[in-house]
Amino acid sequence: MADAPAGKLSHFDAEGQAHMVDVTDKAVTDRVAVAACHIKMARETFDIITEGRAKKGDVLGVARLAGIMGAKRTSDLIPLCHPLPITKVALDLAPDAALPGIRITATVRTTGQTGVEMEALTAASTAALTVYDMAKAVDKAMEIGGLHVVLKDGGKSGRYEAT
Amino acid sequence: MADAPAGKLSHFDAEGQAHMVDVTDKAVTDRVAVAACHIKMARETFDIITEGRAKKGDVLGVARLAGIMGAKRTSDLIPLCHPLPITKVALDLAPDAALPGIRITATVRTTGQTGVEMEALTAASTAALTVYDMAKAVDKAMEIGGLHVVLKDGGKSGRYEAT
Amino acid sequence: MADAPAGKLSHFDAEGQAHMVDVTDKAVTDRVAVAACHIKMARETFDIITEGRAKKGDVLGVARLAGIMGAKRTSDLIPLCHPLPITKVALDLAPDAALPGIRITATVRTTGQTGVEMEALTAASTAALTVYDMAKAVDKAMEIGGLHVVLKDGGKSGRYEAT
Amino acid sequence: MADAPAGKLSHFDAEGQAHMVDVTDKAVTDRVAVAACHIKMARETFDIITEGRAKKGDVLGVARLAGIMGAKRTSDLIPLCHPLPITKVALDLAPDAALPGIRITATVRTTGQTGVEMEALTAASTAALTVYDMAKAVDKAMEIGGLHVVLKDGGKSGRYEAT
Amino acid sequence: MADAPAGKLSHFDAEGQAHMVDVTDKAVTDRVAVAACHIKMARETFDIITEGRAKKGDVLGVARLAGIMGAKRTSDLIPLCHPLPITKVALDLAPDAALPGIRITATVRTTGQTGVEMEALTAASTAALTVYDMAKAVDKAMEIGGLHVVLKDGGKSGRYEAT
Amino acid sequence: MADAPAGKLSHFDAEGQAHMVDVTDKAVTDRVAVAACHIKMARETFDIITEGRAKKGDVLGVARLAGIMGAKRTSDLIPLCHPLPITKVALDLAPDAALPGIRITATVRTTGQTGVEMEALTAASTAALTVYDMAKAVDKAMEIGGLHVVLKDGGKSGRYEAT
Repeated sequence: MADAPAGKLSHFDAEGQAHMVDVTDKAVTDRVAVAACHIKMARETFDIITEGRAKKGDVLGVARLAGIMGAKRTSDLIPLCHPLPITKVALDLAPDAALPGIRITATVRTTGQTGVEMEALTAASTAALTVYDMAKAVDKAMEIGGLHVVLKDGGKSGRYEAT
Repeated sequence: MADAPAGKLSHFDAEGQAHMVDVTDKAVTDRVAVAACHIKMARETFDIITEGRAKKGDVLGVARLAGIMGAKRTSDLIPLCHPLPITKVALDLAPDAALPGIRITATVRTTGQTGVEMEALTAASTAALTVYDMAKAVDKAMEIGGLHVVLKDGGKSGRYEAT
Repeated sequence: MADAPAGKLSHFDAEGQAHMVDVTDKAVTDRVAVAACHIKMARETFDIITEGRAKKGDVLGVARLAGIMGAKRTSDLIPLCHPLPITKVALDLAPDAALPGIRITATVRTTGQTGVEMEALTAASTAALTVYDMAKAVDKAMEIGGLHVVLKDGGKSGRYEAT
Repeated sequence: MADAPAGKLSHFDAEGQAHMVDVTDKAVTDRVAVAACHIKMARETFDIITEGRAKKGDVLGVARLAGIMGAKRTSDLIPLCHPLPITKVALDLAPDAALPGIRITATVRTTGQTGVEMEALTAASTAALTVYDMAKAVDKAMEIGGLHVVLKDGGKSGRYEAT
Repeated sequence: MADAPAGKLSHFDAEGQAHMVDVTDKAVTDRVAVAACHIKMARETFDIITEGRAKKGDVLGVARLAGIMGAKRTSDLIPLCHPLPITKVALDLAPDAALPGIRITATVRTTGQTGVEMEALTAASTAALTVYDMAKAVDKAMEIGGLHVVLKDGGKSGRYEAT
Repeated sequence: MADAPAGKLSHFDAEGQAHMVDVTDKAVTDRVAVAACHIKMARETFDIITEGRAKKGDVLGVARLAGIMGAKRTSDLIPLCHPLPITKVALDLAPDAALPGIRITATVRTTGQTGVEMEALTAASTAALTVYDMAKAVDKAMEIGGLHVVLKDGGKSGRYEAT
């Protein structure tokens, strides 16, 4: 799975000190990343959230917005992330009765010098945390999992797709 | 698992509109929350990170700091969270060769009017995302999972422990 | 209308230099403030927004959330505002066909040493700006007005109500 | 006044879910926006502020700075706004004895893929809120109004001027 | 000068891992801290800044505001700082022709569980950096120095005064 | 030392009002800046910090990260700074037994329309403040000094090197 020379973590210099990698000379290209996760919950909680969309309060709508705004805070949160001019953020929150819970997918695009995997992961994660926040009064045992990069494209390292 | 009257999501008012819950009249008490998650990775990635602690760069040290700072940004990220005077944040990042990966635990305390579950979850999540960021050059397939509240205490609703 | 000794702007010291007023010795009391404003728009825009609540996109739901989050950013935005532990934020966005437009009311509470007028005004203003943002593709001529404090209570200076 | 196909709010997708519009393929062009508003106050308050510029404290200088800094926070405040590399912000705060009050104009420029109306509106609004904050000790009845886009240029949709 | 047991850095736990110190059980008391620094500059630069106060632009007024706002961002900037409800911030910027340059003093107060030295230092530092920013077009060789805590009081560890 | 026409502070307009300078028409070029400072401390403090790197807690590692993250907050802190897409940040923290203390150097790069002196100065300053924060339990008398721009290059005004 490892796709770079073993032992080479680019966020550290030759002496092992953390730095923000120099991307000055990288090309400005269109980049996209998709990340996904899920939040698993009790059946009753699932019913409340999914029925609530229409009647009692739009948990998924609030979580979607939180995810979009979270993507914009990525370089504030992740120490060595470059600030990036994000050009698109979209989140899909799909109830899955079999889980039971919500499946979250975040898509982020930029025209810049580094990829947007961290922005997509942060968006998905923030949306899931927001679902937890809004439903924790009825269910503290919810669990967030499966947070991973589904797709990454643009830039020198080429296309990556989760298998 | 659901521990409140079914259908009662406190973040919505009677008309189903989102609001920040009124905690003006809640007691100021000591509160604590512990959250945990893990990040699973390729064996080679695990070896690089764990060896790197001594020689090539301290991934876990950077992630720990990111988690601490992330806890302080919780009310910026989660739309309906109350701002809280956090009085303690600690993160433990333990390599687990069997995973292989890192197990992350975040403990947050406050003296305030609401609980700090969201702060603990955000701290653990931000630390895990930072591990991803720092190792993604060698392994894009890492997965973050098992993010849940381990313990919550203080405040009117009493002690909660994950089973 | 002026309710303090003429010429006394508390945000300046004796030499006329701006400072954040010392509230160390003020009592910690429950405080509330309500602010209101409106955003006036073309009839077609009004119809799109109000119909859209059900079908095409919830402009008012997004604006409500923006207002709640905006209240939490008040001390970041307003230079001499004290940071405050906000204990409640609620926004009401009511379509008014006669305007035509949206009437916005924000209510903020705290248990602290200064009032929350600025938080309520910032919440209402941010919600109105968000309505503008979401509808500007169809109507650039919308106008935000009538932003004022409706009510303020708690603290030494007593109750204020707009007449 | 509506200048787009009725019913088309670009901040929602086909299912009516909010998203940050994809501007990846839009041209990078010079863009400018001008927004204006006013804050109306009691005659005594007006006198204090305008005399104070020289002697007792520079309300308008503080408000100007707040407006400039507010423009830089726009994408933090407005949920679906794109982050933009702002290249200029200027605010004019002109006392108007006939109002009586202050007339505020904000001009923002960028070289980017979306317009800067929201940045100009946020700058003007933040400056007005700051005037309120600084004078509220003497006058709680001040009112902010007339916040609108005066001019917008650059980008595909062409020039817009308020009539 | 060292006033604690040698080798005891409270920001690390027994294993040497950074954490935000637990202050849950510390008393809420009034606390004050004063920090100072200076910025040294060319004679011509000094003349421009000091004359400019009246006529060409208020460098010191802008720097003062930046310092006040900087104090409020301390816990965002300094990783292990606790967020604190600041109750007062004041900055004094005094031209010193003998330097030549500006002498900056920042005073911060809180009613809380930890001291405000970092807030006072951050305020003074931010004000000095802002003077640099505003005058760098005419003088890149300015130097900021002498940044130290002048006074600290309140809390268990008692009063500290620089000698 | 002054390298511009006397009396010309570009951050003020013809009327002496602060503004964010218009850089819309400036070329997008690679730019670099290096800033340095030091923090002087008691011998015992120096020994604790330098020994601690291996055993009791990595003060310099935490400070380095704080400096990197501080660089990204520059336009939030310095009122008239333009937001910039930073492409590299690196900090070097070198113990100097002769001081005794730590010498800090920050290097920042961007591809943009304005220089990154302020980002480099803010990074160095934030790192030094973080060292103070982490060691203040044992030494309140530490002093930060010598903060200056070492090097600046790229852009129309050419190369600057401190003499």
